[in-house]
Amino acid sequence: MSHASLDTIAALATPVGTSAIAVVRASGPECAELARAIFGETPLPRMAHHADYRDRAGAVVDDVLVTFFAGPKSYTGEDTLEISSHGNPFIAQKILEDLLARGCRAAEAGEFTRRAFLSGRMDLSQAEAVMDLIHARSKRALAAANQQLRGSLGRHLGVLTDELLGVLARVEAYIDFPDEDLPAEDRRIVARGVERVAAGTERLLATQHYGELLRDGIKTVIVGEPNAGKSSLLNQLVGRERALVSPEPGTTRDFIEERVILGPHCLRLIDTAGLNPSPAPLEKLGMEKTLERAAEADLFLLVLDATRPHPELPKELVERLSAENALVVFNKIDLGGDQLDIEQYIEGKEVVRISARTGEGVDSLISAVVERAEAFRRDQGDEVIAINARHAAALGRAQECLKAAGANLGVAGPVELLASDLRGALDALGEIGGKIDNERMLDHLFATFCIGK
Amino acid sequence: MSHASLDTIAALATPVGTSAIAVVRASGPECAELARAIFGETPLPRMAHHADYRDRAGAVVDDVLVTFFAGPKSYTGEDTLEISSHGNPFIAQKILEDLLARGCRAAEAGEFTRRAFLSGRMDLSQAEAVMDLIHARSKRALAAANQQLRGSLGRHLGVLTDELLGVLARVEAYIDFPDEDLPAEDRRIVARGVERVAAGTERLLATQHYGELLRDGIKTVIVGEPNAGKSSLLNQLVGRERALVSPEPGTTRDFIEERVILGPHCLRLIDTAGLNPSPAPLEKLGMEKTLERAAEADLFLLVLDATRPHPELPKELVERLSAENALVVFNKIDLGGDQLDIEQYIEGKEVVRISARTGEGVDSLISAVVERAEAFRRDQGDEVIAINARHAAALGRAQECLKAAGANLGVAGPVELLASDLRGALDALGEIGGKIDNERMLDHLFATFCIGK
Repeated sequence: MSHASLDTIAALATPVGTSAIAVVRASGPECAELARAIFGETPLPRMAHHADYRDRAGAVVDDVLVTFFAGPKSYTGEDTLEISSHGNPFIAQKILEDLLARGCRAAEAGEFTRRAFLSGRMDLSQAEAVMDLIHARSKRALAAANQQLRGSLGRHLGVLTDELLGVLARVEAYIDFPDEDLPAEDRRIVARGVERVAAGTERLLATQHYGELLRDGIKTVIVGEPNAGKSSLLNQLVGRERALVSPEPGTTRDFIEERVILGPHCLRLIDTAGLNPSPAPLEKLGMEKTLERAAEADLFLLVLDATRPHPELPKELVERLSAENALVVFNKIDLGGDQLDIEQYIEGKEVVRISARTGEGVDSLISAVVERAEAFRRDQGDEVIAINARHAAALGRAQECLKAAGANLGVAGPVELLASDLRGALDALGEIGGKIDNERMLDHLFATFCIGK
Repeated sequence: MSHASLDTIAALATPVGTSAIAVVRASGPECAELARAIFGETPLPRMAHHADYRDRAGAVVDDVLVTFFAGPKSYTGEDTLEISSHGNPFIAQKILEDLLARGCRAAEAGEFTRRAFLSGRMDLSQAEAVMDLIHARSKRALAAANQQLRGSLGRHLGVLTDELLGVLARVEAYIDFPDEDLPAEDRRIVARGVERVAAGTERLLATQHYGELLRDGIKTVIVGEPNAGKSSLLNQLVGRERALVSPEPGTTRDFIEERVILGPHCLRLIDTAGLNPSPAPLEKLGMEKTLERAAEADLFLLVLDATRPHPELPKELVERLSAENALVVFNKIDLGGDQLDIEQYIEGKEVVRISARTGEGVDSLISAVVERAEAFRRDQGDEVIAINARHAAALGRAQECLKAAGANLGVAGPVELLASDLRGALDALGEIGGKIDNERMLDHLFATFCIGK
């Protein structure tokens, strides 16, 4: 973690493309010297200077805005240099090539943020929040990432860690006296502490599903019999959204999947093959796939044709639907008629009447979907916590250790073993913030970042 | 041109995409007030501040770096605000939406640069150089755009304009005395001045072709009989380039066109149908198209198969080749043999021996191509000037006026008419720098810019 040994890294920080501005960043001990060599002076920290970028041969590459940040008050904690050039990939490349020729190294994915972590500017959960922020596609995902970046998860973990440290101190006091057992009074205090930490761990773990929904989008599967208007509904929802729409790459050919922003949520809207009560062999294959997708769904939109008698839907599907995860969409109300006896599908589920053709009722449906999505939220006091799979794995390990500690306390087991379990739980919680060094884990984590961050 | 009447504009200044940083810019009288409203204070000019971007509802959108530039010392000459957020298009959009909700207007294409021009921060040829800079794909194009941005064309025009103003003053002194003719001595002085300005205008006009080559790339047509190795050569050249390669959109299906950077130049390399001495009907069609492309070529690479007797090439093509615009490429030297009697194609042209298959000799060919390309350069003293079509049209109009003035001087025509011609030439030269206001021309010119610049 010594800074003296780090080299100076450089990368393009903006997307490749023709635009007004491109930004190249460098970070490391050579930044002040680089600025002197390129611009003739080291600019005052944080002052944006207008200057000619001259390459090593002395040729003007571009008219740039350069800002020098003196470490440790910079993103990475090191001296850094931000160079805003005209938004031409060729110019940005020339600047980058020149920085490399002057001794910089091309930054690896996430290396700027990794340095911010290594220099203590942020803990590991904050570093992960940077990536969450960059990939957030909904208001809720943005809010959760912003809170994590500001240390909300770290603060919750801090409370648990402090409690655990207190408990451990009480236990360790007895370790040097192997003949003495933990007195009953201490055991009760320790047990209560372990329970509180276990409950806190459990509360954080419970936010994992919400974390997945925020990061991946809410998997919303549109199901129903053929010709009920499922695809028209998908088009209506995609058409209504006022933000980004993009076809999802990697979608299996059998399904149309679109990312849609509805209110503060991002949905992965999946249109499926119609569920025919008496399917042809090929149709049967499509239906099997529909049921497969249904098994992964967070939310269902069951689309029924209002003009026809109620369909027979596969039992495997109907059993999955609940008041929490399903909305019954009564389509084709513009064609009149209310032929449908849908009691069997309702059972406390909300029914929304729409016409996917005219758009009538679609706004009400969107409100109902947003309300369902809101119910997935997991608040912790004032904050929204939404842990990721890495956090969940570490919390799971902490839980195992706390469980073992609890069992030990119940049978008044060896103090050394109790202390070891408590330390195990502490280490597992510490991993989340990156207190435990693990090069391979860091390599893996930052490899998912983009270059230049 | 009054600033008080301008509203505050905002736009994304970086390409849309997931990256480390995105930059949103605003410019106009409300920027200081916007900074106060969003960040709680107006940052010190040019100081990069780390701050929470809070939208109008008070919700944190992102952790940003904000820099305020106080006019007139800013790009646009107005107060401007640069907001660097995390590189998430969703965040950039939220920030932009919030700025619009706070009263900004979405900037039109080129509107920031248009304001820089209107506030006198740059003349019109410099504004055009901004776009040239953003689109430059070669070292030479970059150098020419950088010089134009720094006012090189404006300086040359300034010299001509000053000369012309002196001449005009001498002529106008006689306008108020309708009975007096221009004395012979003055006429000689005026005539010499007009000649000097005409010669200068001519020198600038002569750089138009080079300007086209820089902006569009050097159209380099690879010709030769079928199977001479034309496509292999194209692949070799594309493969050798160390910079950007991109297939050219809009290429006719019959031709492969690739943009290639060779040395400091950008070439549009066009592979054509082989020229068969006795073509089949369909082949004939392809050959006609080859000859069409040849008519627009700046440079030819005539590829000949070294292992076979010399081919009969169409006279229309051979006549176009000269020592200046053609290189004879003697291919397949790895297969030995020097069967070719190519004297008829040479006539002072440089011959380069290569194997497009093994790559032997390709570096020498590249050097020869670069040398040919360099010969297109038009230096004006220390500077590279490369005018565009708009400049050429204005210079052409100036030339017409100067010609009329010259004729008038020859026959001692009416002084009023002479003055009017000289003023016409001045106006035409003034148009290049934008001294003559013309809203429609400005609309047209800035519409080709990108949004955010």
